[in-house]
Amino acid sequence: MLEELKQKVYEANMELPKRGLVTYTWGNVSGIDRKAGLFVIKPSGVEYECLKPEDMVVMDLEGNKVEGRYQPSSDTPTHLELYKACPEVGGIVHTHSPWATSWAQACRSIPCYGTTHADYFYDGIPCTRSLTGEEIEGAYEKNTGLVIIETFRDRDPASVPGVLCANHGPFTWGKDAANAVHNAVVLEEVAKMAYRTEMLNPKVSAAPQVLQDKHYMRKHGPDAYYGQGSQG
Amino acid sequence: MLEELKQKVYEANMELPKRGLVTYTWGNVSGIDRKAGLFVIKPSGVEYECLKPEDMVVMDLEGNKVEGRYQPSSDTPTHLELYKACPEVGGIVHTHSPWATSWAQACRSIPCYGTTHADYFYDGIPCTRSLTGEEIEGAYEKNTGLVIIETFRDRDPASVPGVLCANHGPFTWGKDAANAVHNAVVLEEVAKMAYRTEMLNPKVSAAPQVLQDKHYMRKHGPDAYYGQGSQG
Amino acid sequence: MLEELKQKVYEANMELPKRGLVTYTWGNVSGIDRKAGLFVIKPSGVEYECLKPEDMVVMDLEGNKVEGRYQPSSDTPTHLELYKACPEVGGIVHTHSPWATSWAQACRSIPCYGTTHADYFYDGIPCTRSLTGEEIEGAYEKNTGLVIIETFRDRDPASVPGVLCANHGPFTWGKDAANAVHNAVVLEEVAKMAYRTEMLNPKVSAAPQVLQDKHYMRKHGPDAYYGQGSQG
Amino acid sequence: MLEELKQKVYEANMELPKRGLVTYTWGNVSGIDRKAGLFVIKPSGVEYECLKPEDMVVMDLEGNKVEGRYQPSSDTPTHLELYKACPEVGGIVHTHSPWATSWAQACRSIPCYGTTHADYFYDGIPCTRSLTGEEIEGAYEKNTGLVIIETFRDRDPASVPGVLCANHGPFTWGKDAANAVHNAVVLEEVAKMAYRTEMLNPKVSAAPQVLQDKHYMRKHGPDAYYGQGSQG
Repeated sequence: MLEELKQKVYEANMELPKRGLVTYTWGNVSGIDRKAGLFVIKPSGVEYECLKPEDMVVMDLEGNKVEGRYQPSSDTPTHLELYKACPEVGGIVHTHSPWATSWAQACRSIPCYGTTHADYFYDGIPCTRSLTGEEIEGAYEKNTGLVIIETFRDRDPASVPGVLCANHGPFTWGKDAANAVHNAVVLEEVAKMAYRTEMLNPKVSAAPQVLQDKHYMRKHGPDAYYGQGSQG
Repeated sequence: MLEELKQKVYEANMELPKRGLVTYTWGNVSGIDRKAGLFVIKPSGVEYECLKPEDMVVMDLEGNKVEGRYQPSSDTPTHLELYKACPEVGGIVHTHSPWATSWAQACRSIPCYGTTHADYFYDGIPCTRSLTGEEIEGAYEKNTGLVIIETFRDRDPASVPGVLCANHGPFTWGKDAANAVHNAVVLEEVAKMAYRTEMLNPKVSAAPQVLQDKHYMRKHGPDAYYGQGSQG
Repeated sequence: MLEELKQKVYEANMELPKRGLVTYTWGNVSGIDRKAGLFVIKPSGVEYECLKPEDMVVMDLEGNKVEGRYQPSSDTPTHLELYKACPEVGGIVHTHSPWATSWAQACRSIPCYGTTHADYFYDGIPCTRSLTGEEIEGAYEKNTGLVIIETFRDRDPASVPGVLCANHGPFTWGKDAANAVHNAVVLEEVAKMAYRTEMLNPKVSAAPQVLQDKHYMRKHGPDAYYGQGSQG
Repeated sequence: MLEELKQKVYEANMELPKRGLVTYTWGNVSGIDRKAGLFVIKPSGVEYECLKPEDMVVMDLEGNKVEGRYQPSSDTPTHLELYKACPEVGGIVHTHSPWATSWAQACRSIPCYGTTHADYFYDGIPCTRSLTGEEIEGAYEKNTGLVIIETFRDRDPASVPGVLCANHGPFTWGKDAANAVHNAVVLEEVAKMAYRTEMLNPKVSAAPQVLQDKHYMRKHGPDAYYGQGSQG
């Protein structure tokens, strides 16, 4: 079932090591079929070299495994909460990519210092609050999803397609699995440049709002003129 | 038309990912045929893996597309202004290369700390002022070109073949497209080493002027003696 | 003799350059056969490109060479002490991997700043005290082993599978040679991210203990649920 | 003439881009035949991809070109002075490798923070004083050699096989061209780790002298026991 989606989610997972975002098995990608109400996700702890499209696990939105010989990623309940809360999200990525994770470990949001950031993320990329002891000792992965949703209470996940989980690492999303990986790559690049920007100028402030608006809208607004029309 | 120039501009564009200067489609190279009054530039938002020489777009110096099935790079008006203002420029590159972009995001010029810098850029590599709200909301890409030209009012673009646009990223240029890419690679290397130099010695000052002069002239002056005579 | 172990130790050694952990010959891996009371280790100063499984040197636990045409790694007495003191250790790695070595040179333990660290190392990764002049001028490599053991007097080497030797570099261990290399890779990644975390937030404190516990137990505790059951 | 030496110097030059020490043509290696009183050096400004063994230039110790269709490296007079002053030197390397060059630009010597450094360089790696205006405007490359020799007045070039030229970059040397490149690779690695060591611990001091002595002597002293006897 969902062979085409499995293939796409498989390919999106394989982009992670290719792009240098994961060490060993430290990442996972999922993609959803909204009509079927099912999503497909990487199995837990299987090495990328051994991964095959048919190893992808099919889950329903109640968190039941519908198909697959492997256990799904241990982060599956986080993906599930995000799919339920954000109907426009078609794919989700979690990694421990080193630059983004360093910001997450520093418990800091990434300010928007330039147009590279503004081209993809409208305003800063937020860092969640720390989970409470109860949230960690309880349904930890589910609560990770809930604290992300809490963080986006006054933000639009479509225009800020990523988040840093405090002391943990990043999640990104997009219209499908491939797009979510694209945003994970961008986040890593943006995190790297923001770090260096602060080292070069500790008093730096965010890029002017009007410049942020211009760049975001140039690619994403109704009058977007970047690319060949069909490209984001 | 301009098949040879298209091929060269195509090859110069392909150097960008090969040299690690671009992620996805974040860069563009153009080259000009001064006799024909036409320049050739990368199409907007097309992935490098898919790019072919015949995809290059031909533009005239009034900003009209003369040939090409794709839209030209969204940064085309910036290239256009630079070609119009600097008759000696034969090729232009824009990237979001991470080290140079970090300086641009920090709104800082790169001081000349050593001979690597002085071999290619005479004196510091300037960072433009921020554009005003009006300039951003108006003809943004054209105004980006104009603020670069303003920055070079009291500098010679031939001896400082690059600039940082505040909160954005670098532009470099050269006698042709390949040479402009060469300068983009050098800028990235120089930006990296200047960053580390400051971290190692926060009170460091620029290299002695006499050393800067010596190295620049050794490669570029009338008595240049680096290379085999025909090499820059 | 011990052909299978030699092959595994050889492969584990070859992972070091492949993973970017060693320059030239700056690293060595060993693995032990507890039943035979023998361990197998890389020869000293032989380049990785030239290494073959049959070049591995077989040692007994009194420090005698049992088989092999080469001299064993000069760090062999350190491995020996660790094998004698820690019966659960099946493989040991020493490298000068740049991030971990930088912490060792700074004479600092690596605090646990996030879940990547907590997934593998319970609590901080300690840095040993400096050896005394007598310890250095005497049986230096043996004393290096003894000071590691001293450092673990109040720690469990099974839950903290690595250490930094002051002004020197890291040792890691694991259930076998391959697992010890795995932990060396993780240590390098964790050391890199901890460095950047501190640069981004000089006042950062360790991740909440409850989060550290959760992640460590999720992978290693009796109720571990990461992976497919048989995976660590 | 000197075909074997040309081949070795060619191969040593080709190691520089392979090891990531040079961008474009920013480096050169030479090797000397002491009996013949001739040294062989890379031609100036020729790209590594195009280089062939027969392109190497043969020079005598008066600075005359003895053979070769190309001009020798513009740094040839520096190599010449070092060969004349240091009879034990058999090969010399100059690069603008980024970590070592950053220290040179910061006008700082590299303290010995650990055993990786001590295994190859006895004590700190010195940075020269700045050249005077007269020295720069006069026989600049020759004077670069002379200031290196001045820096080693109270040091032994055999036990400290490298130097940083202020605001410029590193030179290293060794018993032959390949060994000089080896030392250039080590210098870059040591420079990188020393940088990070200082960032992690701004108050760090050099490694204990007794540890430095131990490691240097373990590889280089009369009782060296690292490697298989014939290895450095």
